[in-house]
Amino acid sequence: MYTINGILENKDIAYECISDHIGKRIHIHGSVYKIRKMSGFAFVILRTARELIQCIYSNEFSEFELEILKEESCIELTADVVADERSRTGWELRMIAVKILTTPSSESPIVINNKRVDTSLENLLNYRPITLRNEKERAIFKLQEGICNGFRSFLLENKFTEIHSPKLVYAGAEGGANIFTVNYFGKEVYLAQSPQFYKQMMVGVFERVFEIGPVFRAEKHDTSRHLNEYTSVDFEMGYIKGFEDIMQMEVQMLKYTLNKLKERYSYELDLLEVDLPEISGIPSIRFMEAKELIARVYKRDIKDFEDFEPEEEKLLSELIKKQTGSEFVFVTHYPSKKRPFYAMDDPDNPSETLSFDLLFRGLEVTTGGQRIHVYNQQLDKMRQRNMNISLFDSYLMLHKYGVPPHGGLGLGLERFTSRLLNQENVRLATLFPRDINRVVP
Amino acid sequence: MYTINGILENKDIAYECISDHIGKRIHIHGSVYKIRKMSGFAFVILRTARELIQCIYSNEFSEFELEILKEESCIELTADVVADERSRTGWELRMIAVKILTTPSSESPIVINNKRVDTSLENLLNYRPITLRNEKERAIFKLQEGICNGFRSFLLENKFTEIHSPKLVYAGAEGGANIFTVNYFGKEVYLAQSPQFYKQMMVGVFERVFEIGPVFRAEKHDTSRHLNEYTSVDFEMGYIKGFEDIMQMEVQMLKYTLNKLKERYSYELDLLEVDLPEISGIPSIRFMEAKELIARVYKRDIKDFEDFEPEEEKLLSELIKKQTGSEFVFVTHYPSKKRPFYAMDDPDNPSETLSFDLLFRGLEVTTGGQRIHVYNQQLDKMRQRNMNISLFDSYLMLHKYGVPPHGGLGLGLERFTSRLLNQENVRLATLFPRDINRVVP
Repeated sequence: MYTINGILENKDIAYECISDHIGKRIHIHGSVYKIRKMSGFAFVILRTARELIQCIYSNEFSEFELEILKEESCIELTADVVADERSRTGWELRMIAVKILTTPSSESPIVINNKRVDTSLENLLNYRPITLRNEKERAIFKLQEGICNGFRSFLLENKFTEIHSPKLVYAGAEGGANIFTVNYFGKEVYLAQSPQFYKQMMVGVFERVFEIGPVFRAEKHDTSRHLNEYTSVDFEMGYIKGFEDIMQMEVQMLKYTLNKLKERYSYELDLLEVDLPEISGIPSIRFMEAKELIARVYKRDIKDFEDFEPEEEKLLSELIKKQTGSEFVFVTHYPSKKRPFYAMDDPDNPSETLSFDLLFRGLEVTTGGQRIHVYNQQLDKMRQRNMNISLFDSYLMLHKYGVPPHGGLGLGLERFTSRLLNQENVRLATLFPRDINRVVP
Repeated sequence: MYTINGILENKDIAYECISDHIGKRIHIHGSVYKIRKMSGFAFVILRTARELIQCIYSNEFSEFELEILKEESCIELTADVVADERSRTGWELRMIAVKILTTPSSESPIVINNKRVDTSLENLLNYRPITLRNEKERAIFKLQEGICNGFRSFLLENKFTEIHSPKLVYAGAEGGANIFTVNYFGKEVYLAQSPQFYKQMMVGVFERVFEIGPVFRAEKHDTSRHLNEYTSVDFEMGYIKGFEDIMQMEVQMLKYTLNKLKERYSYELDLLEVDLPEISGIPSIRFMEAKELIARVYKRDIKDFEDFEPEEEKLLSELIKKQTGSEFVFVTHYPSKKRPFYAMDDPDNPSETLSFDLLFRGLEVTTGGQRIHVYNQQLDKMRQRNMNISLFDSYLMLHKYGVPPHGGLGLGLERFTSRLLNQENVRLATLFPRDINRVVP
């Protein structure tokens, strides 16, 4: 028996500490990202946890043969940090000795160490375990960590309690046929389309709750903006005065998160040349007003009075940006028919709901709204929709035994990331995307 | 069109600000938790987002009839904060006026406002949406938030990158039949038993990664320590010198998290009378040594040479506590037969793995170890186990194209919470537990 005391012995230093060691010999580790042979010396680019470091190999000082290094070898490097005024960092790293920890068995079938991975989307995704090693590819997901963490820190600071709700559920929250079934010990259960029921139940417990986790939609769409599994940032808050409170909270959350990115993820923002949106306030327009505005300005017919066509979302964003400078726009008062049974109808016009979507650069990234909190109102709406109320007994406990006026929203983390980066396809902002044709890798 | 500017107007104050308002009139909101009528006045306990507040109703100053209040009504309260030296808080709250936001339709079928909810486990779980409103029940999950957040903050500070891996997968990571199948557009796919493959792939990208999310185990056990869906805290780290590095990291993570709980969750720790364990170091013992030790001390026969019986885990914890004072113990070098195909065998004794479990108060809460990082070694082990290697093509890319020596662990958040609270059943530390008989609510 011996004792694990929590002391990790490691003499390797991190990238950001190198400049403290000018004139000294250091140990550092990483993967060999790229070897560029020049006349009489070579640049060896080391990929560390977050940065790329240019090292210099030369017979003059390196005590090993360059040939022992392969791209994607993992190495421990002994190097001299030499002051160099010409360098952006103020130093250059001279390779003295290496210990090779692993050598790849094969060369990568795809070139991953250029500025971009120049291949089809199909290949990019098929070879995810290696294409993610490209500096720009991985930067997308480092940034996504920052977005996720920005949202979470904001919510914790604003007294939202973090919850973990089950993904195996007995009833769908969003209705419709877009739900996956699971064989649960011979019984048929479902994969949660959202944590909706659970976050509403928890409003009765903690007043404000949030969850960041996977949700599952069995949508057969194969488009550039749909995923069958995605990460949903969900919050729900009680004691609201109206659904605008939720939008106000989201505006705060977005401002906070974009500021955190600037503070902590400038390396990735620069690398990906991200054009961060400025938020002072976010304009808000009613659904029908928006429909009419688009029809008028772009001389289009309104074909669907209950929902936007994707093209209309783009045009609306374009227009709002032109008129107000904002790259975000709230659309409110969506038709009741298109919203789930728990959405609160507008008492002034019950065919509309006290709900909203947030569009960001032409795409819906958030859906939210106020929920029904009065038991009999909820029963009535379910009866109107011919729902089997007995299936929802435990959900309805929240209404029956008292819950404050409340509402919330769900934001798609991958969609948000994708719009922030102006990507053409949400799969590019998804670590291992799931679509109608893809469950591998 | 109007602008949502991120300003949330709310004059209600929070519990912790009340003492700044002594001598003043305030607005505050919450649920009526309990009404206790005394002679000539009444105590009304208000449940706010985190605390209970005792308010005083009296005809002398209250401008409404007590009868309009029901337990579980949600109210906005106007109250006077009056200095009171006898009170623990230094003030008392006199109810002046109320606005009733919602009134429950029915009285709760279970008494939730006593010190404990006095009912069967079955009822406690069936009525989760309301039983969680009990002050002690909800405190469990506030504390769980703190545990989760402690782990996460520690990992972020230690340069682990947070990832979101898919839960719909094409192959099981842990082997065996304990896997749920999902109908995925007519194809059979699985629910992830762990993020194992993905976190290993991501070690090649970010060196250190973590994920906190749901995992699914189709185990038919119906015991006090098994769940079919739970929240797994998973991390994986590259460039390790040996599997002890992972244990060292876990010791640091536990120390950090317990300290954070002390700092930020003392309200819940006090309420639940939690006996926080002290960690200086954690003793570590080899699996076979532990088996023999238990056999010798407790005069038991060793029946199973490949795994612990649950009783043995309890006895070992008891013994280690007696000998060293530690409520945690690492057990290392589990037999290869009982560990998954990606576990690294001990080169000194290939029938054992470079792996560990962490036991906490008699129960396994973590499983971890070093993984095979050399391509041919991994292929060999898979062949020995007669696995269909072609199924694992994309997983094996990580070995084929080079990955550093690495390892990691998975910790069950509910089990950990449950042991911390000395509960008899892990379901008590699970918000909405899933077991062989339960998917509702």
